[in-house]
Amino acid sequence: MKLNRLSSTDATFDEALHALLAFESTQDETVNNTVNHILTDIKKRGDDALLDYTRRFDHLELSSISEVELPKSDWQHALQRLQTAEREALEQAAQRIRLYHEKQLSQSWQYTEPDGTLLGQKITALDRVGLYVPGGKASYPSSVLMNAIPAKVAGVNELIMVVPTPHGEKNDLVLAAAAIAAVDRIFTIGGAQAIGALAYGTGIIPKVDKIVGPGNAYVAAAKRFVFGLVGIDMVAGPSEILVICDGNIDPDWIAMDLFSQAEHDEQAQAILLCPHQDFLDAVAASITRQLEAMPRKEVIRASLEARGALIKVRDLEEACLIANRIAPEHLELSVSNPEQWIDKLKHAGAIFMGHHTCEALGDYCAGPNHVLPTSGTARFSSPLGVYDFQKRTSLIQVSPQSASTLGTIAATLARGEGLQAHAMSAEFRCK
Amino acid sequence: MKLNRLSSTDATFDEALHALLAFESTQDETVNNTVNHILTDIKKRGDDALLDYTRRFDHLELSSISEVELPKSDWQHALQRLQTAEREALEQAAQRIRLYHEKQLSQSWQYTEPDGTLLGQKITALDRVGLYVPGGKASYPSSVLMNAIPAKVAGVNELIMVVPTPHGEKNDLVLAAAAIAAVDRIFTIGGAQAIGALAYGTGIIPKVDKIVGPGNAYVAAAKRFVFGLVGIDMVAGPSEILVICDGNIDPDWIAMDLFSQAEHDEQAQAILLCPHQDFLDAVAASITRQLEAMPRKEVIRASLEARGALIKVRDLEEACLIANRIAPEHLELSVSNPEQWIDKLKHAGAIFMGHHTCEALGDYCAGPNHVLPTSGTARFSSPLGVYDFQKRTSLIQVSPQSASTLGTIAATLARGEGLQAHAMSAEFRCK
Repeated sequence: MKLNRLSSTDATFDEALHALLAFESTQDETVNNTVNHILTDIKKRGDDALLDYTRRFDHLELSSISEVELPKSDWQHALQRLQTAEREALEQAAQRIRLYHEKQLSQSWQYTEPDGTLLGQKITALDRVGLYVPGGKASYPSSVLMNAIPAKVAGVNELIMVVPTPHGEKNDLVLAAAAIAAVDRIFTIGGAQAIGALAYGTGIIPKVDKIVGPGNAYVAAAKRFVFGLVGIDMVAGPSEILVICDGNIDPDWIAMDLFSQAEHDEQAQAILLCPHQDFLDAVAASITRQLEAMPRKEVIRASLEARGALIKVRDLEEACLIANRIAPEHLELSVSNPEQWIDKLKHAGAIFMGHHTCEALGDYCAGPNHVLPTSGTARFSSPLGVYDFQKRTSLIQVSPQSASTLGTIAATLARGEGLQAHAMSAEFRCK
Repeated sequence: MKLNRLSSTDATFDEALHALLAFESTQDETVNNTVNHILTDIKKRGDDALLDYTRRFDHLELSSISEVELPKSDWQHALQRLQTAEREALEQAAQRIRLYHEKQLSQSWQYTEPDGTLLGQKITALDRVGLYVPGGKASYPSSVLMNAIPAKVAGVNELIMVVPTPHGEKNDLVLAAAAIAAVDRIFTIGGAQAIGALAYGTGIIPKVDKIVGPGNAYVAAAKRFVFGLVGIDMVAGPSEILVICDGNIDPDWIAMDLFSQAEHDEQAQAILLCPHQDFLDAVAASITRQLEAMPRKEVIRASLEARGALIKVRDLEEACLIANRIAPEHLELSVSNPEQWIDKLKHAGAIFMGHHTCEALGDYCAGPNHVLPTSGTARFSSPLGVYDFQKRTSLIQVSPQSASTLGTIAATLARGEGLQAHAMSAEFRCK
């Protein structure tokens, strides 16, 4: 296995790091055209088009579109069929995710000025949200919990889940997670046609206000397309981990942490920063030694060779600077006193502090969300949270006295902008 | 003038309202292709391309690209040149906007569980933000204040403003507003080339993390295109006002409130809901009477005829239901006891409460932001605010004891998802 080894003292380090991080999500024109066609068709023909595409792409034998709704009893049965350990793990994870997200609830606020003018902001939950869950291999129950629970904590009235079931194949863990997370309805549809149905509404699928959840290139393109008509979460890139390590830990643990990101897919990125050459060598040896036993070793190998790196840094201080440049989705701060570095770390989706906090805990059950900004977007965006399912309305109630003072200011500025009706509307209310 | 008059008791009311609200922002393919070409060129040729486009589109005679930076002394001179009334109006507006937005600052939080596990969320400001300000007619100083102040309140380190100056024409009010709002640098560039320069960075223009501010169709298309590489605010549609009125007010005031929205552009939308036919008639008469004196009467007439309406409703209760259906950008609740209706109003960008609160005060100086969700997007989005310039990082520090209990849960779920490395990474840390 050919691992990328860099050192921050190399003359070409900046360039090499830049090349390593370069990732451009290509927008495939064929995908865009197909998606455009499907969305237009769903908008025009509604349920009929949805029925056609679901029959064709998911190989479902449906006699009518009403069969795509999965009755609640089915999800409850799926939950009951689980092994006790799996059921308890899902329920404990859900409970921890719920507790953490309850801290994110925003509250309405207002204040009154001395002359009686009231200003504030009213917070309300979104009415109806669509949750896309991929079918087949990438069908993850943890993703159902992470997307559904913040929506329900926010107070979303109706949470509609869509999940394709190619050839009728259903995933009990996914359905059980939906039952635990209190999803309201489930439809077995997928692809761009499911995004279109949620965005425009059809006879059977209610139109939603926002669509969240991961999906393939068609789903991502469809979400981009309907963005504006409905809200969407971020379109995610490949997953990444950056580990900053002081070397005071079993190198096998760090190697496995890198694997845990690399096993997601060939484009995933796992990078280690450490000031100690011998520790980096030990991790490299561990990677080689542990790789063969991994069921997903081919994916891990491809990911590490193409996008992974072991990087020697001058010290932990420099590691933090490099981390800020990368703005990683997951940042493992595997050092003895992690809290001392937190203020220096400006951009990251989530920080996993200390030798005992592996990133995998955050994927499932620590509590914080696992939907995190990828590809450097942590510079300007945040983990999925309750705030993504709430919105704000400004409140303004001007007292008669204030209507005069503010009206004079507004009229002056409105005339400066050439907007006479604005000025007069304010002046009518001046004493 | 032909005003649309509807009544909620009409058999065809639902259809008529639907038709009235229908507005699809067309994405023009010619615009998209032009923008795509310009962005690619800026990315490839940087400052050289920026110089070419600025010379060509803005008719600026530049000998080198460094001339597009406007030194701070120029903005200070612009501020000093203003009439006292204008300068004071800008400063008072800025002060009120700052005070209101300071209430929006989010704080980091964390909590420790009984076994020592720490969970939290760290809030940081964006590093660098780009603010687009249109040139020419639609160059609004109020827009500079409304976009720049929340960014600076959030703690954005570097706020870069771009404003085209066709034929070298500068707007003193806009430059003065930038000085008052503590913008950091100003460049006289515009169009898709300015968006590209901010998103990719060029020699002279620093790459930013997020781009906010209004612009024409080219600017909007460019923002859509770079979305994901950098953050953007919403792409706004035409402005709208919905007035709910109990009829206990001078009809001239309400007519002028409708004008104040309609004068923005032909596609702006102004709708009045009232339970009293005689008041609706009085407003209609006032519209006809007052229109002729308005400098922008042709714009107002076109807007009201095409997209405006006076609607008779059964009562104020029904008016609130219709308002929720519309999810207006601006909602004027021109009734005697506005607070009693607030809980029933679920979707609106801003609510202007009571007979003395005209929408124009919110445009300039009440305090809340005037950048608000349009075209029904108040169903899922919020006014621009300090929160748009802050981002969150999850913090997770698991205690050794918790690493065992959480590790067991995580490993169970990871195996259920077929992710062996995730499971082992957690299990290494179990006792």
